[in-house]
Amino acid sequence: MANSILFQPVSSPFLVPFDGSFKLANAPTKIEDDGNKESNGEALEKAVAKLSKLQRKLYADNRYSVLLVFQALDAGGKDGTIRSVLTGVNPVGVQVFAFKAPNAEELDHDFLWRMQVRLPERGRIGVWNRSHYEEVLVVRVHPGFLEGQRLPRSLDLGELWSERFESINDAEKHWARNGCVILKFFLNVSQKEQHERFLERTTDEEDHWKFNAGDLAESERWDEYMEAYQAALAATSTPWAPWYAIPADSKSFMRRTVAEIIADTLGRLPLAYPEPTDKERVALEAARVKLEAEMRKGK
Amino acid sequence: MANSILFQPVSSPFLVPFDGSFKLANAPTKIEDDGNKESNGEALEKAVAKLSKLQRKLYADNRYSVLLVFQALDAGGKDGTIRSVLTGVNPVGVQVFAFKAPNAEELDHDFLWRMQVRLPERGRIGVWNRSHYEEVLVVRVHPGFLEGQRLPRSLDLGELWSERFESINDAEKHWARNGCVILKFFLNVSQKEQHERFLERTTDEEDHWKFNAGDLAESERWDEYMEAYQAALAATSTPWAPWYAIPADSKSFMRRTVAEIIADTLGRLPLAYPEPTDKERVALEAARVKLEAEMRKGK
Repeated sequence: MANSILFQPVSSPFLVPFDGSFKLANAPTKIEDDGNKESNGEALEKAVAKLSKLQRKLYADNRYSVLLVFQALDAGGKDGTIRSVLTGVNPVGVQVFAFKAPNAEELDHDFLWRMQVRLPERGRIGVWNRSHYEEVLVVRVHPGFLEGQRLPRSLDLGELWSERFESINDAEKHWARNGCVILKFFLNVSQKEQHERFLERTTDEEDHWKFNAGDLAESERWDEYMEAYQAALAATSTPWAPWYAIPADSKSFMRRTVAEIIADTLGRLPLAYPEPTDKERVALEAARVKLEAEMRKGK
Repeated sequence: MANSILFQPVSSPFLVPFDGSFKLANAPTKIEDDGNKESNGEALEKAVAKLSKLQRKLYADNRYSVLLVFQALDAGGKDGTIRSVLTGVNPVGVQVFAFKAPNAEELDHDFLWRMQVRLPERGRIGVWNRSHYEEVLVVRVHPGFLEGQRLPRSLDLGELWSERFESINDAEKHWARNGCVILKFFLNVSQKEQHERFLERTTDEEDHWKFNAGDLAESERWDEYMEAYQAALAATSTPWAPWYAIPADSKSFMRRTVAEIIADTLGRLPLAYPEPTDKERVALEAARVKLEAEMRKGK
């Protein structure tokens, strides 16, 4: 087995196949049998409890890291899903980064540069709210952004996207080979549901700061985004870094499904509490004897 | 009111006074009326729920950051307290760093340098498991560590610790002036309780990796550590960055007390969801009208 294959991807109707055949038009934003809020809530709680337990072992084992990538259009549910799935897990072992438009220093480097330093450390769960995939999604829809990246003048733009897919697959394979367990979630929301959520944000006093008028303009380019997502997911779902396209019109179903996939994946890793070496075992035993003698003396 | 005073410190019998009069010998490691596990657990849960709600507002408000510093001797309960108090808070808004012995790059700088880049961002809660205080605690007990720091040859070591206290107070005042709410917790465990916890670790299959034989050797320098802690807490408990010396022999009491102090402090900040500007209000209203018209058309 290749060293980049750290685990057998959890089978799921939402797993994006690895052969490039993925069609977004066939990926549901809602399924019929998606449970009710209550049963999904219970299943979520169960999965979070399992994840919380596995996180402790992941941390002690300290060989694997876990990288969770979340991509979605605005109001697709990234923030809420991250909150629901990771709240309840010891934050010592969780590192969340929200990637914004690259800043001047980041633009002075290739598009994977800023990702590297934000990879989770061994034993930790890293969460990326948006990611390097923006470079083949929003940038593909707005190729004008490429100008700020000051790429070589000789660059053939016709090759750009497929070369970026190759770079991404290669980088992720390298990360996986070194112990990084990568799971990627596309929260697949319908435009209708998106607009309903926008509408809520415009009227909710506690939520309106999450909405800006530009979101609506972006939504008008829906078809272009769908094309970009389809191309990206089809090209970069790999055995070492699978994509899951999660129906996102029901928040409770989405959250539950994401949590279960993560918990089940972690459950497949050969995690173990570290075994003491012979030398450490001797030291532990000596310490135990000394401490017990002390206790007896009532010190 | 000085700009560094962001809040009135929560009054508590464990607040270290600001006048330098603190005596560690009078600070209890256990108090008589410290509740039972159940009542402390309930109070902890209540405080965490309050904290979780306030975190949401802190994040939206995006003006303040919160820095929680935890110091204790080995097995004092730092990890467990951080886990108990912060699990249940959205990890998006929590950044935990565990500071180890400084590495070569860090040693090429002053002792506050590595802290700066790990300060929490606005809207976030930063948690430091150990901190810059190690530089006036473990380094004071082991002055040999100073050699690795390659300080100027002319340095008067007699002045070193009080100068470090001054540097720390000045830096924390600067951080506070710019919106960083600083709370510092010394988890005050007795040596007897520490040794009992060590003993548990030597025998528990899931916990022995947390123990190393060096911890016992450090414990033998207990009195030196107590002197160093007393000097540091007395000199650096300030209105803008107060220390709390929390009795730590009862884990449930310690966790509950820490959670309550944090939640109560956050409750004193004038946090608010951002108000839209007039221009944003117009854009929100336009978006609302447009979205509602769309819904009516059943699009």
